[in-house]
Amino acid sequence: MLTIEKIYDAQRVLEEALYPTEIIRSTGLTDRCELFLKTENLQKTGSFKIRGAYYKIARLSPEEKKRGVIACSAGNHAQGVALAAQKNGIPALICLPDGAPISKVEATRSYGAELCLVPGVYDDAYNRALELCKERQLTFIHPFDDEDVIAGQGTIGLEILSQLKNVDAVIVPVGGGGLISGIAFAVKQLNSKVKVYGVQAAGAASMVTSLHDGKIECLPSVSTIADGIAVKQPGEHTFACCKKYVDGMTVVTDEEISAAILALIEKQKMIAEGAGAAAVAAVMAGKFPDLDGKKVCCLVSGGNIDVTILSRVITRGLMMSGRQCTLTIELLDKPGQLVSVSKIIAGCGANVVGVHHEHANAGSEVIGCYLRIDMETRDFAQIEDIKRALTQAGFKLC
Amino acid sequence: MLTIEKIYDAQRVLEEALYPTEIIRSTGLTDRCELFLKTENLQKTGSFKIRGAYYKIARLSPEEKKRGVIACSAGNHAQGVALAAQKNGIPALICLPDGAPISKVEATRSYGAELCLVPGVYDDAYNRALELCKERQLTFIHPFDDEDVIAGQGTIGLEILSQLKNVDAVIVPVGGGGLISGIAFAVKQLNSKVKVYGVQAAGAASMVTSLHDGKIECLPSVSTIADGIAVKQPGEHTFACCKKYVDGMTVVTDEEISAAILALIEKQKMIAEGAGAAAVAAVMAGKFPDLDGKKVCCLVSGGNIDVTILSRVITRGLMMSGRQCTLTIELLDKPGQLVSVSKIIAGCGANVVGVHHEHANAGSEVIGCYLRIDMETRDFAQIEDIKRALTQAGFKLC
Repeated sequence: MLTIEKIYDAQRVLEEALYPTEIIRSTGLTDRCELFLKTENLQKTGSFKIRGAYYKIARLSPEEKKRGVIACSAGNHAQGVALAAQKNGIPALICLPDGAPISKVEATRSYGAELCLVPGVYDDAYNRALELCKERQLTFIHPFDDEDVIAGQGTIGLEILSQLKNVDAVIVPVGGGGLISGIAFAVKQLNSKVKVYGVQAAGAASMVTSLHDGKIECLPSVSTIADGIAVKQPGEHTFACCKKYVDGMTVVTDEEISAAILALIEKQKMIAEGAGAAAVAAVMAGKFPDLDGKKVCCLVSGGNIDVTILSRVITRGLMMSGRQCTLTIELLDKPGQLVSVSKIIAGCGANVVGVHHEHANAGSEVIGCYLRIDMETRDFAQIEDIKRALTQAGFKLC
Repeated sequence: MLTIEKIYDAQRVLEEALYPTEIIRSTGLTDRCELFLKTENLQKTGSFKIRGAYYKIARLSPEEKKRGVIACSAGNHAQGVALAAQKNGIPALICLPDGAPISKVEATRSYGAELCLVPGVYDDAYNRALELCKERQLTFIHPFDDEDVIAGQGTIGLEILSQLKNVDAVIVPVGGGGLISGIAFAVKQLNSKVKVYGVQAAGAASMVTSLHDGKIECLPSVSTIADGIAVKQPGEHTFACCKKYVDGMTVVTDEEISAAILALIEKQKMIAEGAGAAAVAAVMAGKFPDLDGKKVCCLVSGGNIDVTILSRVITRGLMMSGRQCTLTIELLDKPGQLVSVSKIIAGCGANVVGVHHEHANAGSEVIGCYLRIDMETRDFAQIEDIKRALTQAGFKLC
């Protein structure tokens, strides 16, 4: 049974391997409330997952430790289990789908785990993990539906209450629900006046749906940029915990999550992964109007975003804020046209970073061609200036 | 005269407006030493500059305060002076070149400063600022060569010594030298055993050159990704301070700085601007072998990197680590060629993100054409696999 004593015990156990993460005051993310960020993205392995995994592993019997542990994950849980096992000096076997990003594979390997790359998707890797677990008599470390794991994540609740006096509310990203279960339990035991809210991705709202229906629901599929919380079905322990202790839930879109990732970069100088930015996204989007003017702590649960994805989020953010722009211009295929276009763009102060020239297609004149120009711009007003200048000079924009 | 009492006074004054920034233990940036990061990128306005500006402004006479202050900067100093003036309730006029990035202009404006956008480059803005300073009898806030400003930055030295017990060395990015002068003075007064080292960009090594020559030198030009430390000439106070108190200096290239920015993102989940990453770059590149195994604190002096630049740094980092790749393939201009190429690439597991098709040029066969393919790849080994498969299928890589 989950008790506050167990969470205190987890805190004592974690002290030997981890340090409490900082709470940082937010600057400029929102004017709605006094916002603080609990920086689990700065935790060892880049996410909170090591807390639960470490406590679970530390409590295994000597016999269980000797045989070792197994987990199935291509993400933060894999890294958490791998490092937790290494720090406890026991073997870990991690099953992951063979299409997993190489950066995550390599990070997991670097913590000394044995890897089993399974052809197929997550479910294939999961089934293989169950087989191997039986075959080798390993202990399976569940990513969220386990009381020891939940107790480990709950240590974050203890830290928030001791680091941030008079906090009014804690907002937590929710996938399977292990993180929020631990935090909500700890917080409500110690100070029931502090509110605890959860945030899911709109494309993976399994806990929201389950709480709404009053029973555990399994989504047919999930789709979100926040892969860390893309979970089809909550656990039994976590569903019960959320039902009892969580004050409310909301969802955020991938657009809102991307905006939060970019805002955390620009305003807070901090990298969050999609799941890690979900709570901040909810606050920025005003999903909790009751918290206006209050002292709010958002969990930034992880920072392991693939830089390829990060690069795309930034590009999208630049385009959405008018700082990057692509124009397609229909030209007559005669000399001097590129000069004229370039001059107009330079005159407006934009910076050309890409030029593509395409020949006529069926819908245009035979002597026509297309020019696609990628530019760095200052804002939407500048883009409009450029468009106007090109049109006035007789160019046709597509 | 700069005294330790003055720096303590600055600390008392700053308490009313700023909070000390955290020192965060580094994870995975280097194995050479025990590395800590003083996170001035998380400071208000995104850099340390507000410390010096605030102390300078707070010490003005009531008469001077009433007339207001002026500064010339397109960067962190502008934002520091603007917010410091706002917090002191006095007017600020900031001159900047009219080509300054809109994000920095807007940030400065958001702190309530009056802006004067001067046509031309920095020197034009500087000259205009001197004129306006005289005309309106404003107080000019120098970005570094001022004892009050230096004392303000020196508060970081006090914080490091109290936050990080038994630190062996502090490493500081150096532009004009205000930051390192304050820190070195404070540290050496309180504990002369702690080493203080400086790092400049190789393309703007004015302090390094001046210290080497034993006199203040002015570089004809500067060029570096680290615009925050692109300073042609050190100040008189700062040169004297560095000569007396700094234990050594080194330089880092733009490549090394870019690698540090990317590593801070991936390993530390933190955004640094070029100047802000310079000290970390020096440690990662092994520029201070004497510090191997020691307890080292790097100043991460600022995080105000334009996301356009950031996007480029990430792209470059991806290419340099084999995670992004562009191949140009010579094709015969006949049906089915694109299908074959696409199949081979997909078969190797890479992800195509861009395709450009170009017609023959003078050097190639008349019926030939070029296909340029942008791909997301796992690593260099995968790129080699793709190249080999394409070559074996008879395609010619350019």
